[in-house]
Amino acid sequence: MKSFYSFIGGHHGAWQVSQMSALAGEPLPQVAAITMLNQPSSDVQDRGQWLLEGFTSNIRYAERSELSALRAKQQGLGRAGVKCAALIPIQKNPAWWELSQEERRAIFEEQSHHTAIGMDYLPQIARQLHHSRDLGGPFDFITWFEFEPEHTTIFNEMLERLRASKEWSYVAREVDIRLVKN
Amino acid sequence: MKSFYSFIGGHHGAWQVSQMSALAGEPLPQVAAITMLNQPSSDVQDRGQWLLEGFTSNIRYAERSELSALRAKQQGLGRAGVKCAALIPIQKNPAWWELSQEERRAIFEEQSHHTAIGMDYLPQIARQLHHSRDLGGPFDFITWFEFEPEHTTIFNEMLERLRASKEWSYVAREVDIRLVKN
Repeated sequence: MKSFYSFIGGHHGAWQVSQMSALAGEPLPQVAAITMLNQPSSDVQDRGQWLLEGFTSNIRYAERSELSALRAKQQGLGRAGVKCAALIPIQKNPAWWELSQEERRAIFEEQSHHTAIGMDYLPQIARQLHHSRDLGGPFDFITWFEFEPEHTTIFNEMLERLRASKEWSYVAREVDIRLVKN
Repeated sequence: MKSFYSFIGGHHGAWQVSQMSALAGEPLPQVAAITMLNQPSSDVQDRGQWLLEGFTSNIRYAERSELSALRAKQQGLGRAGVKCAALIPIQKNPAWWELSQEERRAIFEEQSHHTAIGMDYLPQIARQLHHSRDLGGPFDFITWFEFEPEHTTIFNEMLERLRASKEWSYVAREVDIRLVKN
């Protein structure tokens, strides 16, 4: 279960919440801090006010050339100097999940350029994607981003580009939680 | 967690083991019976001698025409008259998981005809695929098959065709457990 992560919203934690906003669908209850643990939720003692759970997995859409480019450019979480993070859980609508693999790929990349947009902000904006839909939680994906404070503007620009894409017309719920390291 | 299934190998259960064989890699300890529960393993009381866990998920490779054909032909588990089942857990090797999405798709379907072969045996051979790799278990996939006794020959033929495919060169471990309804 080492691929499992728990995100606990509560009164205290390693990351202080600076802003929480619901861009689509229901908001999450306001909390003061977030703790991210590399543990399944069943192992978590202090469950805070709410808990989200997801797992990292194999890459679902990237083709070979994209994978190679990503691997050459991306950096991991936990870099020195990184004081800002964002936790963005997303739920897609049933129409998305009714699509076939090549239909999802076409919307994800050929029409929305999801990987290509993310690549424009590497290595400054590090990200880790967690899958949550298979666990029956309220969200399908939980993405954790890390960046230095001076890259907040380009982080916002990246999100604007993604949110203007065709893929985002399938997003039923999205909460954007901004975090500062304690 | 309604997409989670537990497969418990033990002394008693709804399905009696008629044969267990390891086709690749380590065998599983011999058991007399299998119980399949639509529950995550954390909810299972009697855990038997071993327990495998997986979840059903969205379709990962099928294109629109294949999805439509599958949905038109396939039938669910639990049909009347079904007295035979098979539980086949599989682990693929690291080379498989290093592949990109389009490389996996090419091997899975264009070279190995996985979906097309399965379709040749619908609706007689019903199947349900469970994903297990993300849960950190020993297997990546656990497939449950159900069929009437007179279709055992075509079931074996289907497995022979799949096992002769390019895709199976990536299979590091495979255990084939044949079951008869108690």
